[in-house]
Amino acid sequence: MTEQIRILIASKGKPEALAQGFRQEFPQAEILTDPAALDGTPVPYVVAGKPDPGTIAAVPGLELVLSLNAGIEHLLAPGEVPEGVPIVRLVDPAMTEGMSDWCLAVVLSWHRNLPLYRADTEWTRRTEVLSRDRVVTVLGAGALGSRVARLLAAIGFDTRVWSRTGRAVEGARAFAGPEGLVEATTGADAVVNLLPLTDATRDVLDAALFARMNRGGLVASAGRGQHLVDADLIAALDSGQIGAAALDVFRTEPLPPEDPLWTHPGILVTPHVAAPTQPGSAVRIMAENIRRHMNGDPITEIADPARGY
Amino acid sequence: MTEQIRILIASKGKPEALAQGFRQEFPQAEILTDPAALDGTPVPYVVAGKPDPGTIAAVPGLELVLSLNAGIEHLLAPGEVPEGVPIVRLVDPAMTEGMSDWCLAVVLSWHRNLPLYRADTEWTRRTEVLSRDRVVTVLGAGALGSRVARLLAAIGFDTRVWSRTGRAVEGARAFAGPEGLVEATTGADAVVNLLPLTDATRDVLDAALFARMNRGGLVASAGRGQHLVDADLIAALDSGQIGAAALDVFRTEPLPPEDPLWTHPGILVTPHVAAPTQPGSAVRIMAENIRRHMNGDPITEIADPARGY
Repeated sequence: MTEQIRILIASKGKPEALAQGFRQEFPQAEILTDPAALDGTPVPYVVAGKPDPGTIAAVPGLELVLSLNAGIEHLLAPGEVPEGVPIVRLVDPAMTEGMSDWCLAVVLSWHRNLPLYRADTEWTRRTEVLSRDRVVTVLGAGALGSRVARLLAAIGFDTRVWSRTGRAVEGARAFAGPEGLVEATTGADAVVNLLPLTDATRDVLDAALFARMNRGGLVASAGRGQHLVDADLIAALDSGQIGAAALDVFRTEPLPPEDPLWTHPGILVTPHVAAPTQPGSAVRIMAENIRRHMNGDPITEIADPARGY
Repeated sequence: MTEQIRILIASKGKPEALAQGFRQEFPQAEILTDPAALDGTPVPYVVAGKPDPGTIAAVPGLELVLSLNAGIEHLLAPGEVPEGVPIVRLVDPAMTEGMSDWCLAVVLSWHRNLPLYRADTEWTRRTEVLSRDRVVTVLGAGALGSRVARLLAAIGFDTRVWSRTGRAVEGARAFAGPEGLVEATTGADAVVNLLPLTDATRDVLDAALFARMNRGGLVASAGRGQHLVDADLIAALDSGQIGAAALDVFRTEPLPPEDPLWTHPGILVTPHVAAPTQPGSAVRIMAENIRRHMNGDPITEIADPARGY
């Protein structure tokens, strides 16, 4: 522990706020924010947002990559993080709370017809359905999906949760694997996507899934833009098979001004704000993981390149 | 139990659906739906919506009034239900669920800026706040208020709950009495009203309460229209002290087309749909209470005229 720690913050966001946080956690450390300034001295720790391709591979003496995001598919791409260097996903209770707030907000707002009532200027009662009579399927049962599913069930929704392994969630019915996905989404009134992006989950929100849902339901996605087949969603909305969509993530971000998702009346676009990284708590969690690494203690949330997250 | 049961359904809504339900519960009973057809034969049970004034007082041999609503202030008015005849409030888990869905929907939709994002056509990130950093105060801690407060706390909000008696709710901080109301609403970011209407709660949502809240917060009311001083709300919205309002109840219902509440940009109007009476479960609950009365068993949710609910 007498050796000097070096940490490179490879983020195009606000590296200075993070650097300040790390300086407080490790007053003796050298904190770098410019990858171009590397001089061959080993830098064992990289805090990674979405840096330019090849940035991380060029870091000498790299031992551990700490992601600023829960999703790390971009860090698993070829030529990014050298084989054998562990990548730690950021699982921050504050971000989990933000994500679950967004999911509950879009499901409940749709469930109680708030956008329709907001547009009304006369007393028109719509058919109101109890939450117990709505099937809501959450895709993903990690820290995010399991919290959202647990809260949806507590509110009263008939809740299903699907994941690769079929992980159980209190109050929800759990489904696993490819056949489980078909079962979990058949007859769903709402599908909430919180999956990691892998080869197995890319394009999961497609025409086939929409066709299995109950007519007029909700598609909500806060996973990645690549989970959704945009054209299939627009077609399903136009046919009435899907009633509404709420999207926080897009294939291109920021979503270009001319994208049809902006103006489709059935779609709510939010600008990737469901679970903003909270610099304060994120730094504390990453610093704790750096200490664990230095002490040889186990670190949870290490990504597995074979499963893709 | 050999005596024939007579039940009058005094409701302007859909008395036939209720009558059918009661005929199934009590096949031997005489079920009346027209108060004008009373002929002097005793009718011990009245199922009461909001009948014309004096209707219930004219029923011969009245023993028990079963309200179709949780709020029974209209039945406590002079000349309505004869002194000494107990009034049973309808507390139906299905209606409680509907009410809590509405309250959570309007709080979360405001919390995550959904109406603002819905209006956007470009990528503009707003400051997103974690639920732990929002103080939400629920007024009322009966079946409705306690469920809403418990769920708000489970979601993560810094939750307070105020009632006459200061009843405790899991995860929330409880306040009681008139001084407690001042304390509970000081620094609140959102106030959710689920109080019964009594002389003590009339006009509770007024300029003084709004001024104690944090600037730019939410006022949501699903209690009664008479809880809200409409002009004070509009003034507080126009000054920016209140940021948004969601209202399900009004002094005059249906809300007249010319009412300024319809068109104010900060106000969401829903047409008294937060917790619609569910005829199926309501009949089962009222029938059980009639059986308890016949058997001399205690009935919960008997209104207390002295406290006003």
